[in-house]
Amino acid sequence: MYTLYYAPGAASLLVHWLLIEFDQPCELRRVDTQAGEQKRPEYLALNPNGVVPTLLIDGRPHFEAAALAMTLADRHRMPDLAPAPGEPARADYHQWMFHLANAVQPLFRIWWYPHEPAGADHAGRVREHVVPRIEAAWDRLDAHLAAHGPFLLGPRLSAADFYLTMLLRWSRNMPRPGDRWPHLGELARRMKARPSFAVLYEREGLTEWA
Amino acid sequence: MYTLYYAPGAASLLVHWLLIEFDQPCELRRVDTQAGEQKRPEYLALNPNGVVPTLLIDGRPHFEAAALAMTLADRHRMPDLAPAPGEPARADYHQWMFHLANAVQPLFRIWWYPHEPAGADHAGRVREHVVPRIEAAWDRLDAHLAAHGPFLLGPRLSAADFYLTMLLRWSRNMPRPGDRWPHLGELARRMKARPSFAVLYEREGLTEWA
Ligand SMILES: N[C@@H](CCC(=O)N[C@@H](CS)C(=O)NCC(=O)O)C(=O)O
Ligand SMILES: N[C@@H](CCC(=O)N[C@@H](CS)C(=O)NCC(=O)O)C(=O)O
Repeated sequence: MYTLYYAPGAASLLVHWLLIEFDQPCELRRVDTQAGEQKRPEYLALNPNGVVPTLLIDGRPHFEAAALAMTLADRHRMPDLAPAPGEPARADYHQWMFHLANAVQPLFRIWWYPHEPAGADHAGRVREHVVPRIEAAWDRLDAHLAAHGPFLLGPRLSAADFYLTMLLRWSRNMPRPGDRWPHLGELARRMKARPSFAVLYEREGLTEWA
Repeated sequence: MYTLYYAPGAASLLVHWLLIEFDQPCELRRVDTQAGEQKRPEYLALNPNGVVPTLLIDGRPHFEAAALAMTLADRHRMPDLAPAPGEPARADYHQWMFHLANAVQPLFRIWWYPHEPAGADHAGRVREHVVPRIEAAWDRLDAHLAAHGPFLLGPRLSAADFYLTMLLRWSRNMPRPGDRWPHLGELARRMKARPSFAVLYEREGLTEWA
């Protein structure tokens, strides 16, 4: 049994979506990030980083959205949505999960929290600088899908595609949203057509980028 | 057989160190990052991100240091240095690998490339802003080790500790290096005492933080 601490549309979305996709019942606890609930002592006792998501697995708290995605996919859908260790595709799967986690998601942290790198008075400048870096990430990912798609692991859907779709969603109000790149757009369309996506939107009360 | 594209002391160090620790022969190809070799077409054909490391696994290029660490540990040292999927410790292992990759290593990208977030003229200001964020990461990691150490997974050494040690090394010239935190310092001392560490230093020609 799982309990998910989430905020609508936040990094918790990846975990929530996979729980629905995998047909795993979960108790949802909404964290009011606008009100700063993620920095209160009760929450920090579960997740000292003061961010969502946190997932209770058999009662024990765990954090990091990408890690939770991997853990859930290994538990419930290995080897179809997560290649098993020993398969050559596992190395690719690790590569794309960590590429999104290390090289792409941190750029969105800057996009959403532009005061962090250089102070509130430089937020505009920081946002200007991060846009071309995110676009360069889309260029590379789109080229990969063009050559080896339609999914990150080729013909094979994996948890990494759900993660990429969440990041594409985060770019929806940028000057050029990620789904304007042709192969990223095609991936987004396929992922959004999954029945689990509609359930996710309904449970989180989301409307944008439907 | 492995071929590692590396630069001394860079993110490739984690991969190199594990290859030595796991007694895996590898061919080393040094990339002159000062001269910008990582941005030349020959290298971009292997790794379009233009960074080190790249590892050829059975002749196929793979990137992302943390992903390579996981792949190597799964291949050669599961379950001792990498809990197997299905073990409860696997969820913790994923958590710490992704925490380092998503929440800590990107702060070092800012520390080493302070012109990226807001331009060269704001590099000093950006560096000032990143120092307390890295120190806050050490605070949290040190508290975790104090309560649940001596390693990230408790009594059990894993590939995540090698990764953490590389990041601690990267902080050596910061105002307060990570190994000044007591439990992080103790972890660094244990890791640096491993015979593989001396071999790594010799092969990469490293001297600082020996
Ligand atoms: N490394 C974390 C980062 C999560 C993260 O940045 N969450 C954001 C929402 S998308 C958050 O909780 N922000 C509130 C805050 O930073 O105070 C993960 O991937 O789980
Ligand atoms: N996400 C990559 C990042 C690697 C990275 O930033 N490498 C640095 C050296 S530590 C690099 O190659 N820098 C040269 C450059 O960016 O041009 C990984 O973890 O493998």
